[in-house]
Amino acid sequence: MPLEWSSSPPELLLAVDRTSSRPLRTQLEHGLRDAIRTRRLAVGERLPSSRELARTLGLSRGLVQECYAQLQAEGYLVTRPGSATRVAAGAAPSPGAARTHTAAPRLVADFRWGVPDLGSFPVQDWLWATREATRSMPTTDFDYGDPRGSAVLREVLAGYLRRVRAAAPDPEHIVVCNGYAQGLGLTLRVLAHGGVRTVAFEDPGSPATIRTAATAAGLRAVPVPVDEHGIDVRALAATGARAVVVTPAHQWPTGVALAPERRLALIEWAGDRDAILIEDDYDAEFRYDREPVGSLQGLAPDRVISLGTVSKSLAPALRIGWMICPPDLAEPLTGQKHRSDRGTPTLDQLALAGLIESGRFDRHLRRVRATYAARRAALLAALAEHAPALPVTGLAAGFHAVAHLPAGADEHHIVTAARERSIGLYGMSACRASGSATPAQLVLGFGNVGERDIREGIAAIGDLLVNGS
Amino acid sequence: MPLEWSSSPPELLLAVDRTSSRPLRTQLEHGLRDAIRTRRLAVGERLPSSRELARTLGLSRGLVQECYAQLQAEGYLVTRPGSATRVAAGAAPSPGAARTHTAAPRLVADFRWGVPDLGSFPVQDWLWATREATRSMPTTDFDYGDPRGSAVLREVLAGYLRRVRAAAPDPEHIVVCNGYAQGLGLTLRVLAHGGVRTVAFEDPGSPATIRTAATAAGLRAVPVPVDEHGIDVRALAATGARAVVVTPAHQWPTGVALAPERRLALIEWAGDRDAILIEDDYDAEFRYDREPVGSLQGLAPDRVISLGTVSKSLAPALRIGWMICPPDLAEPLTGQKHRSDRGTPTLDQLALAGLIESGRFDRHLRRVRATYAARRAALLAALAEHAPALPVTGLAAGFHAVAHLPAGADEHHIVTAARERSIGLYGMSACRASGSATPAQLVLGFGNVGERDIREGIAAIGDLLVNGS
Repeated sequence: MPLEWSSSPPELLLAVDRTSSRPLRTQLEHGLRDAIRTRRLAVGERLPSSRELARTLGLSRGLVQECYAQLQAEGYLVTRPGSATRVAAGAAPSPGAARTHTAAPRLVADFRWGVPDLGSFPVQDWLWATREATRSMPTTDFDYGDPRGSAVLREVLAGYLRRVRAAAPDPEHIVVCNGYAQGLGLTLRVLAHGGVRTVAFEDPGSPATIRTAATAAGLRAVPVPVDEHGIDVRALAATGARAVVVTPAHQWPTGVALAPERRLALIEWAGDRDAILIEDDYDAEFRYDREPVGSLQGLAPDRVISLGTVSKSLAPALRIGWMICPPDLAEPLTGQKHRSDRGTPTLDQLALAGLIESGRFDRHLRRVRATYAARRAALLAALAEHAPALPVTGLAAGFHAVAHLPAGADEHHIVTAARERSIGLYGMSACRASGSATPAQLVLGFGNVGERDIREGIAAIGDLLVNGS
Repeated sequence: MPLEWSSSPPELLLAVDRTSSRPLRTQLEHGLRDAIRTRRLAVGERLPSSRELARTLGLSRGLVQECYAQLQAEGYLVTRPGSATRVAAGAAPSPGAARTHTAAPRLVADFRWGVPDLGSFPVQDWLWATREATRSMPTTDFDYGDPRGSAVLREVLAGYLRRVRAAAPDPEHIVVCNGYAQGLGLTLRVLAHGGVRTVAFEDPGSPATIRTAATAAGLRAVPVPVDEHGIDVRALAATGARAVVVTPAHQWPTGVALAPERRLALIEWAGDRDAILIEDDYDAEFRYDREPVGSLQGLAPDRVISLGTVSKSLAPALRIGWMICPPDLAEPLTGQKHRSDRGTPTLDQLALAGLIESGRFDRHLRRVRATYAARRAALLAALAEHAPALPVTGLAAGFHAVAHLPAGADEHHIVTAARERSIGLYGMSACRASGSATPAQLVLGFGNVGERDIREGIAAIGDLLVNGS
């Protein structure tokens, strides 16, 4: 960022005690010296002009000038013609140990999952939407707001989710939050207060995230197996859990869609047990070769808390998500959100609302969908060339795939060997509740890897994939 | 916000089953009708063009046109020449009960505390800083970031807080958070995990906020009296607490600065008890007729968690704050922040960094400081005219004052009577741990009240203040 000082100087903490017998100039000199020695004023830092400092402290300008001149003579300050007075290099003792940040070596291709194409973030659209938001928002919107989030955004989200996700959201029962992780954390706390003791989660899935959030909420987390039709509802029933986190539209990470009969069984289970379905609707916007799968929330609005996020559709750095709440959980979830941080930043919420309302969000989605489709094709082509027999599944939607390594393959070895060739690979073991690396599989994220890097990356590790070691 | 559709239409969830024996056109018609009946498509909502929908679903454009025509004939859709096809008014059943939002009646003057001048928010500077941030930030900054917050902002905050607050922050030990409430919540959780059982707080102070946060963290909260020198450290020691929330620079709400000997006693207490001082440095930027009081953190960086926020200096709606952590608490606090929401929005952080670095933040502070000084003068003048004998204290800094009502005055009655005259007054009782309304005092916030409103507001209630009823 260009460090452009405006015409105004920084504030400066310097106390002058008028009741003291010490001369004001001595006090000011000592104060400045101390501030430099103790590094409250860092090397190179700009001081206010003598005029400004004199005004701030109620001293004469001449006194401040004398003081600056003295400290300059002593080597604490430097002044260059036409430039501000600054703290001199070497004026302060050097800090204990210089910190060295060893940056991770740059990878040729990093198949890390869960990251969208960061270079596609619609910067200009976002700036436009932010500017428009400031134009139309009333001054009172700069105050603390409704902890549920901006009514404008909740209205817009409800319309969007009705249309695109076949959800049945009531804007009054949407709570905007700072992404999925916060939504999950708030949800589990509310369920714990409501008497839930155990939350189930899909296996494979996100064991670490869910276990951490469950522990923080005082809940036990139990895994439930996923097969080619999605979560095993009979196994779920056997756990005694009264809540479950599911990814029905596109199971994470296997990529299967929850089969229609399983959807119904899941909802029936929730009704029978007075249980809550926590729907993680993480990347539903991206589908390629199948019909869209509607949100579970639209089928059972009283039983489902649907968690959405822009981390996959726009960027994780925005930290915006939402919870579509069953009517009787909207109030406790709002309370949790309020206690947690009072609400999500308003301007960001209004910008997102404007982005969706203006059609720019849809346009962005269409654009990145094409990008992901091309990367997906590049990945399949590269695998077909360099590891032709390797089964790859879960590619109907999203921006990751599961590669099934040959029997006897060693996931950890392959990941390590690939890293030595500057290729980032990630094993399925991190997604398994047991942490097991068998059967050996890789979860290949291609959201943030260019087509050329995909080709080069797969070419560089084809032998590892083929040989399984 | 102007609802300007870009050239691209919205996405639309409509599944077509090619394996079904039902004709595709029938399926599409039923799908659309259902979507309208169930309000997934709301009245007035725009449909994609027939071309677009045909492409999305892989159907012929003619089929979609026929389908639209049919639904138009049935009254579900309307088309106007040169305009998109939309859902017709009256197409869907009306929702259960129309919600009525009864807005609070507009007050002539609202002396609510804790709100800065919302109209002064430097909108253009903020937009400038956001734009600059997008120009200079690397693409990787759109990813999940360091849960402590942007390294750029932490560096800039450290310099700013060193300079202005005489703090001694290490950027490595700053954790950016979403305002004071989140900072307090995360802090109390970490202390609870560390074995702290009781947190003390100033009385008067913010009993509701602290009790709520303490309960959520599993801590007991105990009040400690405040006198004209600040918190009573001897009384604090008697509580057995191992943490205390204090407002040393400008006690909330009495306005006293913690006396130097009390500061030292507090730090000594913390050392003796292995206790933590939680410094709420909420409005330190605003001072009028006294020397600035440095942050407690600068005196005892190993014992103090200093919580800062831009809610008073810029606007609550930004939801940006920070924690300056003792070195050994930086890691657990970072972990709590990560579990809570992964991090604070990056673009907002970079915008704040740019605002401070460019000097625009200081310039803004100088501007609003003048505004508050004028409002403070207007308040004092109005009180001198309409309630000449009323003692007013706590005016050295910030943007609120404490008015001491005559002996026997009834706080609740005065607040209610003022409200009937459309004047918002707030009693001290809410700030007392006991909730007591004796002695009767008002906390008069003037941050977000214009000078004219201050004059009119005080004129309208002068008799209540004088008579105490």
